[in-house]
Amino acid sequence: MITGKNYIGNELSSIGSDTYKTFDPKLNLETEWTFYEATKEEIDKAVGKAHEAFQTYKKFSGAKKAGFLEAIAEEIEALGDELIQTYCKESGLPEGRAVGERGRTMGQLRAFAQLLKEGSWVEATIDTAQPDRQPMAKTDLRKMLLPIGPIAVFGSSNFPFAFSTAGGDTASALASGCSVIVKSHPMHAGTGELVSSAVIKAAERNGMPDGIFSNLNSSGIEVGQQLVLHPKVKGVGFTGSIKGGTALYKLANERKEPIPVFAEMGSINPVVVLPSALREKGLDWAKQYAGSVMMGAGQFCTNPGLILGIKSTSLDVFINALGEEIDKLEPSCMLHPNIYNNYEKGKKELSGQGGADVVAEYEKAVAPNYAKQKVLTVNGANFLKNPKLHQEVFGPFSIVVRCADAKEMTEVLNRLEGQLTGTILGNSDELKTYSSALDALQGRVGRLIFNGVPTGVEVCPSMQHGGPFPASTDSRFTSVGVSAVKRWVRPVSFQNWPQELLPEELQNENPLAIMRIVDSEHTNKKIE
Amino acid sequence: MITGKNYIGNELSSIGSDTYKTFDPKLNLETEWTFYEATKEEIDKAVGKAHEAFQTYKKFSGAKKAGFLEAIAEEIEALGDELIQTYCKESGLPEGRAVGERGRTMGQLRAFAQLLKEGSWVEATIDTAQPDRQPMAKTDLRKMLLPIGPIAVFGSSNFPFAFSTAGGDTASALASGCSVIVKSHPMHAGTGELVSSAVIKAAERNGMPDGIFSNLNSSGIEVGQQLVLHPKVKGVGFTGSIKGGTALYKLANERKEPIPVFAEMGSINPVVVLPSALREKGLDWAKQYAGSVMMGAGQFCTNPGLILGIKSTSLDVFINALGEEIDKLEPSCMLHPNIYNNYEKGKKELSGQGGADVVAEYEKAVAPNYAKQKVLTVNGANFLKNPKLHQEVFGPFSIVVRCADAKEMTEVLNRLEGQLTGTILGNSDELKTYSSALDALQGRVGRLIFNGVPTGVEVCPSMQHGGPFPASTDSRFTSVGVSAVKRWVRPVSFQNWPQELLPEELQNENPLAIMRIVDSEHTNKKIE
Repeated sequence: MITGKNYIGNELSSIGSDTYKTFDPKLNLETEWTFYEATKEEIDKAVGKAHEAFQTYKKFSGAKKAGFLEAIAEEIEALGDELIQTYCKESGLPEGRAVGERGRTMGQLRAFAQLLKEGSWVEATIDTAQPDRQPMAKTDLRKMLLPIGPIAVFGSSNFPFAFSTAGGDTASALASGCSVIVKSHPMHAGTGELVSSAVIKAAERNGMPDGIFSNLNSSGIEVGQQLVLHPKVKGVGFTGSIKGGTALYKLANERKEPIPVFAEMGSINPVVVLPSALREKGLDWAKQYAGSVMMGAGQFCTNPGLILGIKSTSLDVFINALGEEIDKLEPSCMLHPNIYNNYEKGKKELSGQGGADVVAEYEKAVAPNYAKQKVLTVNGANFLKNPKLHQEVFGPFSIVVRCADAKEMTEVLNRLEGQLTGTILGNSDELKTYSSALDALQGRVGRLIFNGVPTGVEVCPSMQHGGPFPASTDSRFTSVGVSAVKRWVRPVSFQNWPQELLPEELQNENPLAIMRIVDSEHTNKKIE
Repeated sequence: MITGKNYIGNELSSIGSDTYKTFDPKLNLETEWTFYEATKEEIDKAVGKAHEAFQTYKKFSGAKKAGFLEAIAEEIEALGDELIQTYCKESGLPEGRAVGERGRTMGQLRAFAQLLKEGSWVEATIDTAQPDRQPMAKTDLRKMLLPIGPIAVFGSSNFPFAFSTAGGDTASALASGCSVIVKSHPMHAGTGELVSSAVIKAAERNGMPDGIFSNLNSSGIEVGQQLVLHPKVKGVGFTGSIKGGTALYKLANERKEPIPVFAEMGSINPVVVLPSALREKGLDWAKQYAGSVMMGAGQFCTNPGLILGIKSTSLDVFINALGEEIDKLEPSCMLHPNIYNNYEKGKKELSGQGGADVVAEYEKAVAPNYAKQKVLTVNGANFLKNPKLHQEVFGPFSIVVRCADAKEMTEVLNRLEGQLTGTILGNSDELKTYSSALDALQGRVGRLIFNGVPTGVEVCPSMQHGGPFPASTDSRFTSVGVSAVKRWVRPVSFQNWPQELLPEELQNENPLAIMRIVDSEHTNKKIE
């Protein structure tokens, strides 16, 4: 049942008087639920509890934390149809997507649990003593990763499960040994509350300290700002707009004690279509890309917003086919009227730029908040001289750039900002010919894709979901995949430390049988 | 021979008209050398060359980069006595220290070379395709660490070799595959130029692209600011004051594209002396700590500036012994009159705080720029209420805090800012009794030491030299040890990428035979 209250640790709380409602974009009406904005007092209490809970939780074994994460997955599933229906109502997304994203979210929690049970992720590194070393004895030194403290997680609009309440940021922070305070996304506060109730149940069932998880409602920016500025908050995870993420990043850096912020923000995900792909598979790719642009009403971080080709008849054929294919697809409902309005505004702004021609524009009547897809084309020279065309339009929108030649294509790529992904369609011989373009692309993205679409982010150890600014605030980390845990930990060295007081990961016996680096060798053996 | 010029890549350059001289603190006189401040034009040229060189260098094999690093070590040694004499003249440090630090610097370069030759540091992670997976095929995905781009390195005052021109920041950046522009420390610009000449010789000898390394002279802050703000600079390494490091950190975050800054800054390195240590080894520890406080005229980042004990007769005995031992030692020359003057000012300021009593103060006459050691003592209550007493005084200075009990000791530790190190003297049973104090300490430091002194930073894989702010700007990284390379790299995923175009580290054959994570297993085998 949705109460509209905040979770301050295990307690439901609604001491404030400001409220807001969520919105059903398909009905174009407010939902029946009313949510209480978290007050300053509630924020303080949640962070205070998170700080206290951290002191206990950080010492729990990997197995115990893994049990908690697995229990969260179970409790989410146990919410059953109420959760799925709430998700659909608050997002306008279809049931299949809700079920799929719930599965992904549970899969993420279980992947982190697996990581903890295996245990090697702490990067245990040991240099044993050399008492006879000349000119000076070497003392025993051992290092491993330890959690940094309470983490503020900002729910995203576009993934109410996988990048929100118990999504990748929360799962990775809890896995690392940190406590979590979620700033719930106001568009799906009901979904957020239900998922929070699952986390709290799992916490109680597994003997977790009260405060390990809190969920704060907020329809504005103040709650988030107060969280980021709270001295006891030690890190921030965010998925959303460049404007929002950059503002939080700057705020965190202005603190007396700056803290790390990982914000995954905008990306137009450039796609380079090389001549062979146009010649041999142009119509196939046109169809696949029409689908990729339209996926989830274009509301994916990895939506292909920019397609580059070299001027030729086959590029024209591809562009026409892309237009025809995308026109055949039915628009779908966006997450919220605000997102719909921003989409319409962005689409209009970019369509009005000099040299931009329309390739496709859906023209039939649609219900409110349904996004009509649009594809533009522009030549390379116009694209190069107009940075407005480099902006992301969040929705089913893409621009095809007709470059004069390989040199201009490279120039376009060199001019782009940082991106989550970059895709090349072609054959491998061509990659050698277009090595400068490839080089430019590689320098700007977190993930390179060959002959595929950027949408669809596999949750696995080798996934990099991040990229140079503004795709993220720190290209050295990822928000998807088990490496995401690295954002919330720091190495601590123990010098000449008594064996029995070392963390298990660093003891001679290696009781967890993890992989370690001992005297510069990778090994899972014990130290004799 | 010292020319006073800048190295703009391989070229010596002195187009500006502003000059400055270095200073011999022992003679209390300027040296014979005159240095040309780098101009805006020279900075632009150096960064432009670094950007170009990076495009080539980033593709070099680990073995080739290793050869370059080893050649730098050889060329530094080949500079022979001229280098050692210049170091001594510009720093006032003794020859033994110069030779030792040169050895450490060469050792660091060789350790990074070894890391590159071994090759596993790139964290190659591979998830092979599962074409039959339901409900969706899984595509092949492979990830490894790649360099981020040109790095600006700021030489430190207190380690003219090991944390300057070809020190840990430069060595780690070059190892990662990045190019480097050094902002030479003005106190030892001659030493910096000589070491730079060794780097340039090594670069030429090993076929490195012009611009892989530059060295810019600067006596003020403008050159550093321009470097940090230059759009083609992609990361910053700094060792120095909290004020300087924080200013650069904020500057880097205000860029259109923020970049990572790793600044290793201040630390007072708290030492907790538990009752058993006072009872059983008090006089020994007093002697060892007198030496640790005095080491290098107290100009070490890990100098023990704060010693905590619980009020008792044995603490009084320890304090008296520390005072007597430190009085026996001869003052030594500080690096520069500015550092000497700051030391005197800081010492005076802290001595004047309420409740601070003098334990020891060297009173004999000394030559100019020689630092007279001083030790104060204060009770826990006074320390807690006066944050001035928490400040670092860079030099042979320390405060012993007499805590009322274990609770007050924990409170003092909880009130401290982030630190590079924290030390406990005692026995392991006591560590269990004082677990709250230990917990507080562990949360605040990068390295914990049991029964030792914090001075002496071993260069090895398990070293953590960093810590929560303000010990460093990012506690998730280290500036000492081979893990320092992680500051300058980011993960990049290759999805469905053609085998022959993958970096060797990610190819099925595993031609470098490195350790990888393949389908979640640690292995150095090839993929069949």
